[in-house]
Amino acid sequence: MSTTESVQRCVSEERLRDDITTNAEFGAIPTDRGHGRTVLPGTDANRRAREYLVDRLDAAGLEVQVDAVGNITGRWVPDGADQTARPVACGSHLDSVPEGGIFDGVLGVYSGLEAVRALQEADVDVGRPIDVVCFTEEEGSRFSNGVLGSSVASGQRTVEDALSLEDDDGVTLDTALSDIGFRGTGRLDASAWDSWLELHVEQGKRLRDAGAAVGIVSAITGTIRCAVEIDGEADHSGGTSMADRTDALAAASELVLEVEDATNDIVAESGDTVVGTVGHLDVAPNAINVVPGRVELGIDVRDVRYESMERIVDRVRDRLVNLEAERGVETAFERPYDIAPSEMSDRCTTALERAVSTVDTTSLELHSGAGHDTMHVASVTETGMLFAPSHGGFSHSPLEWTDWDSCATATRVLTAGLVNLARD
Amino acid sequence: MSTTESVQRCVSEERLRDDITTNAEFGAIPTDRGHGRTVLPGTDANRRAREYLVDRLDAAGLEVQVDAVGNITGRWVPDGADQTARPVACGSHLDSVPEGGIFDGVLGVYSGLEAVRALQEADVDVGRPIDVVCFTEEEGSRFSNGVLGSSVASGQRTVEDALSLEDDDGVTLDTALSDIGFRGTGRLDASAWDSWLELHVEQGKRLRDAGAAVGIVSAITGTIRCAVEIDGEADHSGGTSMADRTDALAAASELVLEVEDATNDIVAESGDTVVGTVGHLDVAPNAINVVPGRVELGIDVRDVRYESMERIVDRVRDRLVNLEAERGVETAFERPYDIAPSEMSDRCTTALERAVSTVDTTSLELHSGAGHDTMHVASVTETGMLFAPSHGGFSHSPLEWTDWDSCATATRVLTAGLVNLARD
Repeated sequence: MSTTESVQRCVSEERLRDDITTNAEFGAIPTDRGHGRTVLPGTDANRRAREYLVDRLDAAGLEVQVDAVGNITGRWVPDGADQTARPVACGSHLDSVPEGGIFDGVLGVYSGLEAVRALQEADVDVGRPIDVVCFTEEEGSRFSNGVLGSSVASGQRTVEDALSLEDDDGVTLDTALSDIGFRGTGRLDASAWDSWLELHVEQGKRLRDAGAAVGIVSAITGTIRCAVEIDGEADHSGGTSMADRTDALAAASELVLEVEDATNDIVAESGDTVVGTVGHLDVAPNAINVVPGRVELGIDVRDVRYESMERIVDRVRDRLVNLEAERGVETAFERPYDIAPSEMSDRCTTALERAVSTVDTTSLELHSGAGHDTMHVASVTETGMLFAPSHGGFSHSPLEWTDWDSCATATRVLTAGLVNLARD
Repeated sequence: MSTTESVQRCVSEERLRDDITTNAEFGAIPTDRGHGRTVLPGTDANRRAREYLVDRLDAAGLEVQVDAVGNITGRWVPDGADQTARPVACGSHLDSVPEGGIFDGVLGVYSGLEAVRALQEADVDVGRPIDVVCFTEEEGSRFSNGVLGSSVASGQRTVEDALSLEDDDGVTLDTALSDIGFRGTGRLDASAWDSWLELHVEQGKRLRDAGAAVGIVSAITGTIRCAVEIDGEADHSGGTSMADRTDALAAASELVLEVEDATNDIVAESGDTVVGTVGHLDVAPNAINVVPGRVELGIDVRDVRYESMERIVDRVRDRLVNLEAERGVETAFERPYDIAPSEMSDRCTTALERAVSTVDTTSLELHSGAGHDTMHVASVTETGMLFAPSHGGFSHSPLEWTDWDSCATATRVLTAGLVNLARD
């Protein structure tokens, strides 16, 4: 049996499954179908998830560090490896969206740890340290618009700026991390890594439709997020004739449908990599007998082509101008989040393609429609990304599911990919 | 000076204004424009408003009773009046919608008290007791769909049923009223009244457009409320292609616009008494990076013609069927609130028309687009309703405003109307 075969045999589906199912208990929510969890950064559920990870990293003999914004790194230095060599890193995140699934982010963290455990058992000299990383607040459900920890690790945001971010109740990230015991010191520096791999669930249907075991990501879509406020006049629903009302929700409903139409128009023209979503909408005062006076909504637009994203945003802005003229509402528009599409590096993609051959499985090249910490890491070092197939394409939902053998196969590819990069 | 003139001179704009502005402090909210308050039933703000009313009723020598569901009555028996005669009653409510205005309901309660104070000062023998009433939860913002206290007083709902109603946190009306010291005993019985008058702000623009000082209500529109749930699939906003998503908010947006379209179609056919509103809409999970999985919305439809209301509801139901077929969503529809239009009695309307002449002011006959406690009272005794003009038609909003001299003029008409009914 070759070293490579030995490593592959040492990847344990059972150990990986134990870690993911244990992690699923933290922040678990009752659901009719599937398995859900709500793990917002700095909450008690997040503390428990982080403490379990640190225990597991410790148990495998990795040296654990927590930086000032709560990014966790476990470093394994193989016997005989050059301790000063730039590490090959891998990982993902443990926070979730509200009512999210149990694999998103979690698979990337625990597959990295499983890869290290397999390499340890197989007693392989990979020649470099391997870092297993958990970034803080990838989802952006509490303090930020997302990919927060990696924005600090890649130098795009300062530690001070990140720590001063506040949630809706005015609690800072600094305070929230201190409260759960994960306000560390220093700054994780992704530019010090030789390279980076992230394994993640696909969050789409393409792998299963194609019958591929893993996906090798060519590019991650960019993301533009828009915050829109529409102001009408709150008024009595019975006493105000249809002609006299300025209904913020009716105007907002037109905007929701405009986002959908504008996106579908571009899909029809140039393919289905582009998506546009209104995921967040709040009505005020939100009482059945009051004409809505104000609506706030959040729009999320993504594509591998930045120009397509901008065309959708232009349609939104044009529609707002029309709504002001046609309905008498006032509108406000902000664009607080704007990340261009990012390409994966040839070296990492090649390492993953070779890994697929080593594992003797099947792969599909595809883009990532979801944003990931890898977007930020790609700005400071070479990166690659691997997908495992999602049942039904469900994600950010309790219905999110990836079969355990699919998780294990993808972890084997990740492990071989890490070895390929470390030995380059 | 005639007795009538003397009564009219005794109505004090200043005393009325003092009561309404004092009441406006209870539950006052900060606003950029106007004067807002949030006074949900059974809250501390509601307790303070009720205690102040009881103090003012006491100070004017009225005998106060609080019934089991918190309805407050102050009874004045004029010297020489028949204590056993059926009283003429008047009043309204002190609770508000969230972020409501300071006149809605309040004017009706304190104008009733001011009428009694004026009759006392003028030393007029009206021959019957006069009751000043404050009903519990007219707005329906906490325990019910609205007009709760009057539904019990008119025998449409039992005391036990009302007391067992729960708010969103599972607190019963019984507990909430006990907590603020207004869980009284017995049941206020509106069928024991000779007749009933309610003065209310118009909540529309018709009086000011017509230049009329008061409105005499011919009929109150019926109200149908529908609770709709639309279920799609919560999913990752980036990883799910446009073709693969089942977006509950996009479907709900079509429904919001269908309510508006269906209502406008009937306005075009048969006039502007009909209104249709989606005032309440909640998205789940309501995160910017998740395709909405579920939307709950509340629809409110009103008209003086029940048939028009039913046509709008039919359009809503048809659209839900189409949305299921076209978008793959699942929908649920309920109709928890359904009140037919109600006519005011000729006797009360005539008493108010004569009162307008006595006061030597101007009036307009109109319908009430808003529901009122008078709807329920009309099922058990003779009722009339009077409107005071609203600036800009704003209501259920901090922008709600009625000039103080308009309040006083309407109170003079109410006072004369009460005398006319009491002496019939």
